Amino acid sequence: MKARIMRISFDTMHSEFVRVLKKHGFSDERAQLCARLFAEASLDGVYSHGINRFPFFIDYIRRDIVRVNSEPELIGKSGSFERWDGNLGPGNLNAHHCMNRAIALAGEFGMGCVALKNTNHWMRGGTYGWQAAEANCLAICFTNTLPNMPPWGGLDKKVGNNPLVIAVPRPNGHIVLDMAMSMFSYGKLDTYRKEHKQLPFPGGFDTNGRLSTDPDEIFSSGRLLPMGYWKGSGLAMMLDLFAAILSGGDPTPRLDHSGDEYGVSQVFIAWSIETVHAASVAESITSEVVDFLHLAKPAEKGGEICYPGERTIRNRQENLKNGIPVHEDVWEKILAL
Amino acid sequence: MKARIMRISFDTMHSEFVRVLKKHGFSDERAQLCARLFAEASLDGVYSHGINRFPFFIDYIRRDIVRVNSEPELIGKSGSFERWDGNLGPGNLNAHHCMNRAIALAGEFGMGCVALKNTNHWMRGGTYGWQAAEANCLAICFTNTLPNMPPWGGLDKKVGNNPLVIAVPRPNGHIVLDMAMSMFSYGKLDTYRKEHKQLPFPGGFDTNGRLSTDPDEIFSSGRLLPMGYWKGSGLAMMLDLFAAILSGGDPTPRLDHSGDEYGVSQVFIAWSIETVHAASVAESITSEVVDFLHLAKPAEKGGEICYPGERTIRNRQENLKNGIPVHEDVWEKILAL
Repeated sequence: MKARIMRISFDTMHSEFVRVLKKHGFSDERAQLCARLFAEASLDGVYSHGINRFPFFIDYIRRDIVRVNSEPELIGKSGSFERWDGNLGPGNLNAHHCMNRAIALAGEFGMGCVALKNTNHWMRGGTYGWQAAEANCLAICFTNTLPNMPPWGGLDKKVGNNPLVIAVPRPNGHIVLDMAMSMFSYGKLDTYRKEHKQLPFPGGFDTNGRLSTDPDEIFSSGRLLPMGYWKGSGLAMMLDLFAAILSGGDPTPRLDHSGDEYGVSQVFIAWSIETVHAASVAESITSEVVDFLHLAKPAEKGGEICYPGERTIRNRQENLKNGIPVHEDVWEKILAL
Repeated sequence: MKARIMRISFDTMHSEFVRVLKKHGFSDERAQLCARLFAEASLDGVYSHGINRFPFFIDYIRRDIVRVNSEPELIGKSGSFERWDGNLGPGNLNAHHCMNRAIALAGEFGMGCVALKNTNHWMRGGTYGWQAAEANCLAICFTNTLPNMPPWGGLDKKVGNNPLVIAVPRPNGHIVLDMAMSMFSYGKLDTYRKEHKQLPFPGGFDTNGRLSTDPDEIFSSGRLLPMGYWKGSGLAMMLDLFAAILSGGDPTPRLDHSGDEYGVSQVFIAWSIETVHAASVAESITSEVVDFLHLAKPAEKGGEICYPGERTIRNRQENLKNGIPVHEDVWEKILAL
């Protein structure tokens, strides 16, 4: 049985989030920003880390895993590099703050890097890429996670799927890559499972150790596939090392607290186009690369070749016009919070 | 018919490379370094970008694509960020120089970033990761390439396979990831083809548009698979944008010169552990992450789980002891250069 889908306007969703956040102890200013980040993720079509995630976020607040009034604190500085302690505050507010610091450092030094320890899940990673691109910065940011993926060749979950975000500003629509190191997320697997569908490509292993497109089999084996096999496995480990070493925070091995995830480590790097370059140089390169990509003949009839973020902008426009699609039961849950 | 394999000592290989390079106009100092970088790639087991590549490198010199006496030139500076012009000099010397600049900036500012335009193929990318790790720096570097891979969903080669290198220093053996954005390199496909073997996993598409493990089919279709499907395709595009925008150099669309590749763009970023952190903090995190990885139960009996670079150190030790394996015909070609 599938829940009915309703359409909720951005403003309604935002107000509702603000109401719930203030009820749970957020100041008005912080509630406004936190609600905006959740609502924008939903607007952009990333429901798994927007509206659908909101009730879990509130649950973490109620259990005092996410500390509503904790603010990030500067703990070290060396030129264009800063280290911050997130003090277990709301992950999206901490991340937003640190990307802003990286942007400010980039304005001062050409580039800036902020490492953040002891923070919480940043929800949609792409948020901080869009934020940097809006400030006319190129950016790279990443987070570690609890161990949720077996390394290549292994059976046990010993690496995180550590999302990586890379952004390039572009006047006609920013280019933002937001990808986890697993081929498919658990959320995506679950969607296929609920719809009794096979994955389009292998997303893990079955219990006999064979690559599988069957979400049930993959859940049974617990062996999620790293994207690009050994490549995603290796890249996940490097991102964890960078996040923990640069921040002095916890690496993936320390992040499994009986299944709860908190105290993660993150890195935010920004380059100011205006400082390092004439903006016109960047614009012409970006146009050229996008136009060249779009020249590729589609493999499937009617197919199209998109740059990272191209579909996001379409989702945003559609959802702004028609409202954001929300499962009725999720919306009822939020109204009751 | 397979060529016989000989074993050549590191010193012999290095001297021979020096001889050939000096004959082709290198100063003694630059010949020594260039030869060392080629010999070390071979020593570490990356023959495709070491000994086997050397004759092609000399061919590019003879055709004046690689300009022996061109040196990199500083063209812009802003705090911890610098831009250099490679003046079409030897790619490995230019890259080595720019990673050294990034390391020096990291010593001064905590971190440093150098963007390099108008350079040539850097040969083994991992070289610059090992270089940074030896200097006790964390590092990220990447290069663009000519368009050699179809983007996800497309038929034509519109993105490069843009190798990415990430390094973390470690007293018991540095951790260095060196990966291209294609699932398998053309060199690897060619090896499988020559040995009439199937790839262990799909590495591209057949002429009917189906994923294939057959190297012949993949060469026929020309459709190399991006690692992680849409993920490697997107990441390749982002790396190209970063390399070209930060350096002000050429992006992938401009790098196909009738099949020759020159004038590529690269980025080198380094963080000095000593400047940003107590080295002991980094060491304990690194040990913890490596030890945790090694705890994973292997999926195959007798299998092992390796961190990026772990096998490289073994290759190095074995080749130092027994000599570097070289195809007899390749060695004869080099002796005749």
